[in-house]
Amino acid sequence: MIYLDNSATTKPEPSVLQSFYQASERFFANPSSIHQLGGEAEKLMAKAKEQASELLNVHRDEIVFTSGGTEGNNLAIKGIALEHQGRGRHIITTAVEHSSVDEAFKGLEQLGFDVTYISVDENGVISAEELNDAIRDDTILISMMHVNNELGSIQPVEEVGQIAKQYPKLFFHVDHVQGVGKVPLELTDSGIDLCTISGHKIHGLKGTGLLYVKKGTVLYPLFHGGNQEQALRSGTENLAGSVSLVKALRLIKEREHAGIKHMYMLQRILRKKLSEMDGVEVNTPEDAAPHIINISVPGLKPEVIIHTLGERDIYISTKSACSSKQTDESKILTACGHGTDRSTSALRISLAYDTTEEEIHIFLDALAEAIDQLKAVLE
Amino acid sequence: MIYLDNSATTKPEPSVLQSFYQASERFFANPSSIHQLGGEAEKLMAKAKEQASELLNVHRDEIVFTSGGTEGNNLAIKGIALEHQGRGRHIITTAVEHSSVDEAFKGLEQLGFDVTYISVDENGVISAEELNDAIRDDTILISMMHVNNELGSIQPVEEVGQIAKQYPKLFFHVDHVQGVGKVPLELTDSGIDLCTISGHKIHGLKGTGLLYVKKGTVLYPLFHGGNQEQALRSGTENLAGSVSLVKALRLIKEREHAGIKHMYMLQRILRKKLSEMDGVEVNTPEDAAPHIINISVPGLKPEVIIHTLGERDIYISTKSACSSKQTDESKILTACGHGTDRSTSALRISLAYDTTEEEIHIFLDALAEAIDQLKAVLE
Ligand SMILES: Cc1ncc(COP(=O)(O)O)c(C=O)c1O
Ligand SMILES: Cc1ncc(COP(=O)(O)O)c(C=O)c1O
Repeated sequence: MIYLDNSATTKPEPSVLQSFYQASERFFANPSSIHQLGGEAEKLMAKAKEQASELLNVHRDEIVFTSGGTEGNNLAIKGIALEHQGRGRHIITTAVEHSSVDEAFKGLEQLGFDVTYISVDENGVISAEELNDAIRDDTILISMMHVNNELGSIQPVEEVGQIAKQYPKLFFHVDHVQGVGKVPLELTDSGIDLCTISGHKIHGLKGTGLLYVKKGTVLYPLFHGGNQEQALRSGTENLAGSVSLVKALRLIKEREHAGIKHMYMLQRILRKKLSEMDGVEVNTPEDAAPHIINISVPGLKPEVIIHTLGERDIYISTKSACSSKQTDESKILTACGHGTDRSTSALRISLAYDTTEEEIHIFLDALAEAIDQLKAVLE
Repeated sequence: MIYLDNSATTKPEPSVLQSFYQASERFFANPSSIHQLGGEAEKLMAKAKEQASELLNVHRDEIVFTSGGTEGNNLAIKGIALEHQGRGRHIITTAVEHSSVDEAFKGLEQLGFDVTYISVDENGVISAEELNDAIRDDTILISMMHVNNELGSIQPVEEVGQIAKQYPKLFFHVDHVQGVGKVPLELTDSGIDLCTISGHKIHGLKGTGLLYVKKGTVLYPLFHGGNQEQALRSGTENLAGSVSLVKALRLIKEREHAGIKHMYMLQRILRKKLSEMDGVEVNTPEDAAPHIINISVPGLKPEVIIHTLGERDIYISTKSACSSKQTDESKILTACGHGTDRSTSALRISLAYDTTEEEIHIFLDALAEAIDQLKAVLE
């Protein structure tokens, strides 16, 4: 199998799954139970949180374990909006967010919030200046992604962080789901108040994730209850899930430096060969994250190419998995100014540290063949 | 180990953990990906949902997989409140709810909702008539538990369901977390619109659960995004978690009939022996659920008894794990009209199908000894 859909989800690392299994078996007690078994579970929980905080270089009370990226984004966005609406109801995001941010903003519009969507250039990147100009007296939140899940474009979150710092009443949330292990991001002193990470995008398990919540940031919890997770995310802790997430994060951090270099090398090969292919347009900008290369093959239906490759056990995708069934058109490519022929024919190839050069060549040959065949049929 | 804290959490059934493992390994693709691997994951997801719906005797579109009971309760309660507030902002619950319901209501009060808390009698049970009288023109939600997690008291949810049916504009939510596998509840034609189930209370995994959402019930989602789970709970599906939950539910349903009988037998022994013990008061009413027996030992600190038993590898708890660290007093026992001596000295023994009569006798002897020792020290 040649799996090149790592931005949709990754194969769980066996040792990560193993730690989930062991923690579930051996530390099954409720960390809130005051007996000794509960105490042991609580200690393991504290250790997991400690380790997560060390890996992210933040304080342990700033880690909130969640069920994934969508929860993290919704908790950050609605948590700020519902808690701080007395201060203002204006919130800012961009035109190219993942649906879990975009739809959360739409949901808040339904509740009476006023949203500004910052537009992007042809590379899918916003202008920090334009964003700065959009800030008003009643703005309480800026939420934006670090790395775009369709194109791999990198947003100027560091720059926006410096802007956000100048508005102490405003909170800044970063959706770092596609950035972890691909484009390093320093949280300390960044101006970032909230940062979302998802387990299954880094060879962790589905149903796991974390939200960084800077000390002093008050959120309206999505889950009220027994006050677990610093009262920001109640519910009996998924201890095994958290242990597995920390393991996945550690493995990524250990391999990050070499892994990024390796993926950039593969991406260069892909970019070169793909731009030489007849009828293929490369959508991912030059300075993107290393793990994504997005192309369009105008005139050919992307799902047909995907199925043709799938028959050869090679897996790539159309735009984002999370929106792939809703419409043919990529909202992101449209936001970049591309026409319908290009925005409805996009394919995304997304890499992992373990993707090999050989796999890339096999894929490229198979793609070229598939395109030729399909074109022949259409002629 | 004699584990008698099954209301806090249960030991995962090995075969349940096994199915999680296998599904994580073999069906790791994103069910939303349109390639063949995604299709296989999607099919398994549909099968899991189909099976869950058969086990609960409802329609498959009425199942929403969640991360647990706290999420289910919050999604039901806030989902109705935020979506239907235009129609009215009065919501009803009881004085003895789990914190995930109670605090969700408090959270809604913070947003301007008006809450009526129905009181309970000395057995911890509400009066359906009193509840009926509390319904107003602007009431949009009734939320109550089926089985109380501290006492095991059973609420008249069937009766309340019949009342709710007479108010078509009002939604009725039942927290069935402590009822599953202990006190059967029929959903069809019950008047119940929403019903919460949690995986880890039935030998499933933490981080799993489901919410029954009756067809036609519109909720404001807590997680907006890619429109997974009928758009009520977006986010990349935790397929392995859902598969494991369905497995746990099936195993419970298969053993339910015999299991309930067995636990009632053990509960009778416990009730008889405990009420004969000097200084012990039984708090759980006669007609309670089979798996809980709650007692008070006025004058003795419950945590000391728990630790003494823990040293002999026997595990019981104080009231609810989810509130055990916050205050000494049981809100539930206070609501039943008990004084401080009794409400601050409560112990909860909670059973599983696999609990044996021998374990119960060992526990009873150990408890009697512990009480004697502690009393001797105090004299
Ligand atoms: C940029 C981005 N944000 C958020 C998410 C949502 O994360 P999850 O799938 O863990 O809910 C995804 C992936 O689906 C993503 O690519
Ligand atoms: C009655 C009741 N409702 C809700 C919950 C919350 O469920 P979970 O622990 O899965 O979040 C619990 C247990 O903690 C419970 O006993």
